[in-house]
Amino acid sequence: MKSFKKLFTSKPKPHIPESSFKIGGMGSLKVPDVIPSPEDDSHKLKKAFQGFGTDEDAIIEILGHRDANQRKKIRETYHQLYNETLLDALKSELSGDFGKAVILWTYDPSERDARLANEALKSKKKGIKHLEIIVEMSCASSPQHIVAVRQAYCTLFDHSVEEDIVASVPPPLRKTLVPVLDLEGHILILVGLVTSYRYDKEVVDTDVANLEADRLHEAIKTKDLAHDDVIFILSTRNFYQLRTTFECYKKKHGNPIDKDIEKSGKGDLESLLRMVMLCIDSPEKHFAEVVGTSIIGLGTDEDSLTRAIISRAEIDMMKVKSEYLNIYKSSLDDAVTGDTSGDYRKFLVTLLGGKI
Amino acid sequence: MKSFKKLFTSKPKPHIPESSFKIGGMGSLKVPDVIPSPEDDSHKLKKAFQGFGTDEDAIIEILGHRDANQRKKIRETYHQLYNETLLDALKSELSGDFGKAVILWTYDPSERDARLANEALKSKKKGIKHLEIIVEMSCASSPQHIVAVRQAYCTLFDHSVEEDIVASVPPPLRKTLVPVLDLEGHILILVGLVTSYRYDKEVVDTDVANLEADRLHEAIKTKDLAHDDVIFILSTRNFYQLRTTFECYKKKHGNPIDKDIEKSGKGDLESLLRMVMLCIDSPEKHFAEVVGTSIIGLGTDEDSLTRAIISRAEIDMMKVKSEYLNIYKSSLDDAVTGDTSGDYRKFLVTLLGGKI
Repeated sequence: MKSFKKLFTSKPKPHIPESSFKIGGMGSLKVPDVIPSPEDDSHKLKKAFQGFGTDEDAIIEILGHRDANQRKKIRETYHQLYNETLLDALKSELSGDFGKAVILWTYDPSERDARLANEALKSKKKGIKHLEIIVEMSCASSPQHIVAVRQAYCTLFDHSVEEDIVASVPPPLRKTLVPVLDLEGHILILVGLVTSYRYDKEVVDTDVANLEADRLHEAIKTKDLAHDDVIFILSTRNFYQLRTTFECYKKKHGNPIDKDIEKSGKGDLESLLRMVMLCIDSPEKHFAEVVGTSIIGLGTDEDSLTRAIISRAEIDMMKVKSEYLNIYKSSLDDAVTGDTSGDYRKFLVTLLGGKI
Repeated sequence: MKSFKKLFTSKPKPHIPESSFKIGGMGSLKVPDVIPSPEDDSHKLKKAFQGFGTDEDAIIEILGHRDANQRKKIRETYHQLYNETLLDALKSELSGDFGKAVILWTYDPSERDARLANEALKSKKKGIKHLEIIVEMSCASSPQHIVAVRQAYCTLFDHSVEEDIVASVPPPLRKTLVPVLDLEGHILILVGLVTSYRYDKEVVDTDVANLEADRLHEAIKTKDLAHDDVIFILSTRNFYQLRTTFECYKKKHGNPIDKDIEKSGKGDLESLLRMVMLCIDSPEKHFAEVVGTSIIGLGTDEDSLTRAIISRAEIDMMKVKSEYLNIYKSSLDDAVTGDTSGDYRKFLVTLLGGKI
């Protein structure tokens, strides 16, 4: 086996793996050809808040057709014009799932994710499912985004997100007596992920991919899933490199890596790692599953549905829709329309690129 | 003992430790009251490069009296005016220690540190001393700076700095047979440090400091210095919190923590941890020692001397000077003047706030 050092210092061979793709450029958000000025938008929003009742349609029509940059300008202009923040106004006017969705959409994406992460970390829920946002913001976003989220998190909550991960993730049942402070495997992995700043161009070294596929296989086989090497590989390698590693894994060891992890155990660590690998390998599949899971079965998980649509409307929602069709053999738009109602439905449909 | 979780979720008590201080505001760089326009500076620099020989004094007079923002504007303007970069011009005109120093000073600070880090990581030197730059940029800088360095590093070198740390740091002699890929303790710590994004306001929780002082003591006692908890504490806690932890350590366990680490072993891991703690606890002392060590003894280590002065001239050089006087009972300015010569001396003296 080649030594680690040699492999890493060897010059990476440019190689374009078939399954790789760029995040971005495939959003569903529709923005008008001629954008009204932020002053016009602010005036119309102010008007929608005034008088008896709120004009929800006007809010959807404006905010539901502006991208993150345009929303930022509206926030700034609204604040200057009316000496109150747009977010405070929305909070006092709107409520329910519709209100939550519009407010999340109106935040700067980094502040939105920082707030979602904080809410997840403060939650008393068991398991790992509610921590999906942490994995999404680190494994299905650009390196700049995760840094912006960390910065926003510090500003808003007086701690770094990694400190709060350690503080808030409930330790699983311990099988052996370990000192109180020892960090659990899934905590180490979450900290590794949020602290990542990956190279974001398509440079892949197939030798490294091969070696690291073996390392991951070894860790799964020996049930040592939180080994330093696993953390290093998943939180440091660029996404193109990792996708090639997962391909190598399948070729060399027979099964897709997520299947092998699933077989190896049903704990938090295994769930977390499957989530991580899916987000890296195919963010559109991950988000299609988030939407699917939030809709299927009794009742709707509105928080997850909102999060998925708001997070991806400007990024890759067209791909999420296509993956949804692939998995569930039905249209994501139809599923959302059928499972929601009122202004909440109108707003989501707008973000999905449909007509009110 | 309180549980980890409880401690972290308890509201931190604002507390201002006596030894803490803010980085910044104590530089030695002198900038004229009326700053010439970047166009004027660019013209003068171009003139200094033209004709027979180079006008080094003019270069020192201009660049040695401009802060990072002003140098950035000069770089941009020079490029626009002459269709070549200022850095290329400097590289073709200057050489030796003077040239190296002026060029490092002219880079954007994040690009400068990314280049210095890359040079250190590519070096074949043994031990840990040459990796000081990695510790300095993560433990004696703002969270924004380390992120900017990571970004610059990816852009310049096609890898993340953390990947190159793993690839380049030579593993120490192994006492036990471990698999080839297992990451060494000092690598884990370096990766932990460069991936940090710390909360940068003065919020200290003395309960946490007390508990973590005990954890550090336990790790030193059991010679388990690269334990996850040590990495987590050193790479996640804000600098004010850590300084309080080191104070608690001394109060509870008798010795300053760096002395106990020194006593526990002479390996790379111990050297690295001492460097980390000094950079966090007292960056001015660390840099005073870098200057002192580079000057004292046979010959001068110009690279370290240049790095220290260039890194801190805009940050806290006045404190470094005062600490130098404290340690070496002589003036840093005199030491630099006595140990250097020619344009190199003129340039360093200028950055130190003296007259040519």
